[in-house]
Amino acid sequence: MEDGGQGQADAEVRERIEASFARQGLMRHLGARLTRVAPGCVHIALAARPEVTQQHGYVHAGATSAIADSAGGFAALTLFPPDAEVLTVEYKINMMAPATGDHVEAVGKVLKSGRTLTICRLEVFGIQDGQRSLVSAGQQTLFRIAATG
Amino acid sequence: MEDGGQGQADAEVRERIEASFARQGLMRHLGARLTRVAPGCVHIALAARPEVTQQHGYVHAGATSAIADSAGGFAALTLFPPDAEVLTVEYKINMMAPATGDHVEAVGKVLKSGRTLTICRLEVFGIQDGQRSLVSAGQQTLFRIAATG
Amino acid sequence: MEDGGQGQADAEVRERIEASFARQGLMRHLGARLTRVAPGCVHIALAARPEVTQQHGYVHAGATSAIADSAGGFAALTLFPPDAEVLTVEYKINMMAPATGDHVEAVGKVLKSGRTLTICRLEVFGIQDGQRSLVSAGQQTLFRIAATG
Amino acid sequence: MEDGGQGQADAEVRERIEASFARQGLMRHLGARLTRVAPGCVHIALAARPEVTQQHGYVHAGATSAIADSAGGFAALTLFPPDAEVLTVEYKINMMAPATGDHVEAVGKVLKSGRTLTICRLEVFGIQDGQRSLVSAGQQTLFRIAATG
Repeated sequence: MEDGGQGQADAEVRERIEASFARQGLMRHLGARLTRVAPGCVHIALAARPEVTQQHGYVHAGATSAIADSAGGFAALTLFPPDAEVLTVEYKINMMAPATGDHVEAVGKVLKSGRTLTICRLEVFGIQDGQRSLVSAGQQTLFRIAATG
Repeated sequence: MEDGGQGQADAEVRERIEASFARQGLMRHLGARLTRVAPGCVHIALAARPEVTQQHGYVHAGATSAIADSAGGFAALTLFPPDAEVLTVEYKINMMAPATGDHVEAVGKVLKSGRTLTICRLEVFGIQDGQRSLVSAGQQTLFRIAATG
Repeated sequence: MEDGGQGQADAEVRERIEASFARQGLMRHLGARLTRVAPGCVHIALAARPEVTQQHGYVHAGATSAIADSAGGFAALTLFPPDAEVLTVEYKINMMAPATGDHVEAVGKVLKSGRTLTICRLEVFGIQDGQRSLVSAGQQTLFRIAATG
Repeated sequence: MEDGGQGQADAEVRERIEASFARQGLMRHLGARLTRVAPGCVHIALAARPEVTQQHGYVHAGATSAIADSAGGFAALTLFPPDAEVLTVEYKINMMAPATGDHVEAVGKVLKSGRTLTICRLEVFGIQDGQRSLVSAGQQTLFRIAATG
């Protein structure tokens, strides 16, 4: 599971994740894009526009965390049946380097998918001219609920 | 310290925090407002607009976490000398209830202010018609650096 | 709930917590003692013997965390019906000062008690000649399960 | 760095880590053993004796966390010069499965080694008849200090 998602998720899963992503006003408002949907692994990218920076001009920890939290949630969702949804219970994230680069990309990977709880590893990379460097790393706990209609 | 900040911070501190807040593109983009600056305690409010929601229509955990992270950072900054700045090392946050209400308010409070590291408690309340309920709680580690010009 | 447990829990709850505590080999091995059982709030004390120190002679973060984790778990258990048990999902803890003193005391307090998940605040105090100082602070997520016999 | 420590650390580093481990009363009291010292990666094993269990007979989260915390601290220390020491700032750990097996082994790996702060990934495996399964995963922040004599 950990190196999970070499390939792409099947069409039903991708459609389900894309539809859920499209309903997240925050992701759209930040300008985030879903860049990979694989079983147990989802990537979300965010361009480093002024709208998402902190006071030193780097991407704000709140923005990198928001896409990391979403990437983990969607990674969990890829392994659920169609009638289930996901809520974040909690996450912890370390900001290890300034989030520099022309864009950042969050990677959420499922470490453990249980009946009720899912645990994900979260990573955010700063990307400049194709060079990736790890800027944040974290861990997240998610709760599976029945879909609400 | 924990119940810190009954009053308001003095004018120099308030101006410094407001200037730093104004430089955070993300806070402006989300529509966040600095609602209280007291010594060791800062509040940031955010209206529950569609731009900051997740797929169920509640305020996105990424948005509540972003204002919580900023509130903690500014709370640390209120206790620093004017020539110091602050970086988030890490935080952990539990989403305890859906972030409902017409707005949410994050409260960052300094638990321990050391020479290099500051530890803050983070809380986010959902507020509807003046009724407050705790929706998120967390803890944050911050790093003090010399100002960069 | 947060300032919970002014009084003592009733006799049924205290007996249940004490019986569970007595089954924890680690608590006995460390020399930990249950010092307060109130609704939603449990205290556990640990004498600063050489058996629980780290390389600088302070109480080891692993020992302070172990009693903090247990205090939170038992605090959750005080609010459960007799046929339920508790498992730690995760916790996060900051070591804010060296754990000095002739003993340390962990305080677990329930912040939110839900149907499946409970969130606790964890604090550990170093105590020397009756003087208390906060040495660690954290937050914990717990899972309620049906008793196993 | 992440897959760091394929080999063994050099003799000076191993001696330094072993001497520091030997001064940790808690590790000795729990019966923990240093099983690998590689650059940026340290393993600590613990036999599943009754002295380290919780109320259901599994290894107590406090014991698995204690060896995980120590493994991370020593992993950081392998990359420091001889005159530096390490303190845990904070850690977060998820208990993903009951810590079953005849022994558990914690693995601390450095994700980022900075001038002041080091970030480690923590994992604990339950091991039964040579079969390993991941029981806990976490992340830790450490602080580098000058040695005290």
